Amino acid sequence: MGATGSMFRGTKPIVLTASLLNSRPDDASSALHDVATAYPDVICVDYTHPSSANLNADLYGSTGLSFVMGTTGGDPGAMQRAMGPDVYAVIAPNMAKQIVALQAALEILATDFPGAFEGYQLKVVESHQSGKADTSGTAKALVRSFQQMGVADFSTEDIEKIRDADQSQARMGVPANHIAGHAFHTYRLTSPDETVSFEFQHNVCGRRVYAEGTVDAVQFIHQRRRERTVQRSFNMIDVLRQNAKH
Amino acid sequence: MGATGSMFRGTKPIVLTASLLNSRPDDASSALHDVATAYPDVICVDYTHPSSANLNADLYGSTGLSFVMGTTGGDPGAMQRAMGPDVYAVIAPNMAKQIVALQAALEILATDFPGAFEGYQLKVVESHQSGKADTSGTAKALVRSFQQMGVADFSTEDIEKIRDADQSQARMGVPANHIAGHAFHTYRLTSPDETVSFEFQHNVCGRRVYAEGTVDAVQFIHQRRRERTVQRSFNMIDVLRQNAKH
Repeated sequence: MGATGSMFRGTKPIVLTASLLNSRPDDASSALHDVATAYPDVICVDYTHPSSANLNADLYGSTGLSFVMGTTGGDPGAMQRAMGPDVYAVIAPNMAKQIVALQAALEILATDFPGAFEGYQLKVVESHQSGKADTSGTAKALVRSFQQMGVADFSTEDIEKIRDADQSQARMGVPANHIAGHAFHTYRLTSPDETVSFEFQHNVCGRRVYAEGTVDAVQFIHQRRRERTVQRSFNMIDVLRQNAKH
Repeated sequence: MGATGSMFRGTKPIVLTASLLNSRPDDASSALHDVATAYPDVICVDYTHPSSANLNADLYGSTGLSFVMGTTGGDPGAMQRAMGPDVYAVIAPNMAKQIVALQAALEILATDFPGAFEGYQLKVVESHQSGKADTSGTAKALVRSFQQMGVADFSTEDIEKIRDADQSQARMGVPANHIAGHAFHTYRLTSPDETVSFEFQHNVCGRRVYAEGTVDAVQFIHQRRRERTVQRSFNMIDVLRQNAKH
């Protein structure tokens, strides 16, 4: 656990990156109380294991610390209830702003134009490092949007997962130096008569894009806290939208 | 000029496909008056030359005929003013519903998340049959949305046009039997550090997708006219949205 300096105190947010998973709850709580006392403007950045998401949110809530949490697990409702009156948070399954924007766009399409891809066939391939066991959450979310737009005969189980280095390079074009950490996705939609096709790809190497989104989320939380907005729990769509208002 | 049968009269729309470009205006007007008298439910389908769009809209307006017009030219304001009280129309530069949906999604993204692709580099290649001289209007529209989202150093003049059969096949994968009629588009967005990339493709062979969209537009106009809606001028977004309401 390390706090990145009081030099940012004042108008800039102070960021604390927390690894609470291996701490006993009492130790973690005590440590967070000390941090909150020394650095009242601190914002915790938390990429914890899904199974610890709620425990950590409870700790931040009880110590009055605002936080940015990247998690695909936990109970968001319980997290919001645990947030004390001065706690602000961004809780999001994906911090990559551009991918969140793409996902949001497809959700808007699905809501506004539910029959736009009626009868189209879908094919989805995603490639990740071999350590990732589950199917991409983003791919699942996009598939649900395509289903709403009328895509036939495709469930999230039909998403093809590549977890093999050779396949990742040969089929998806993943650079050799990013085999250990990447997220490549290709979606192909084809009309029933095959005269029309659409392809969407979102390909990420490394972790930088998530770090950039996290910094934006921290700045967003810092600003909302300064303004003491009534809404205190946000997601990355809220972070993205802020640019439209300024 | 040929009307597709009175057998569709009643609950179904009657469609008239018009080739007025080579007619003298008086002859065309007289012919349309005859058609309107014989088939009061007729809906004209018009894929005219841009230079004739307003002339034709005036003719439909003066004879009380509703119409579906696919045009990238003309003065839409003048067309709307020419529409008599019982005239309903869909006027659209592109009748391919799925491409219109994609374009709408990117416009929504650009409005809601204007900074989402800040600093990203863009590359656009489009391929069409050799007879098409101008740059794809859809590509230009999408580029404007990407610009709004913060894409740097790219203007619509930077769109690469392929009008050569060999290039179309080799670089874009256009099937040999569709060289004479196709519309292939690839947009590639890359982050400043090149660790993140997005690719969007929309590829059309032949004309079927436009015909299908036209049929949807005719049915839409027929329905609005039956309901005598106050709004009488529509575009393909309106046609797409109707599914969301039913």
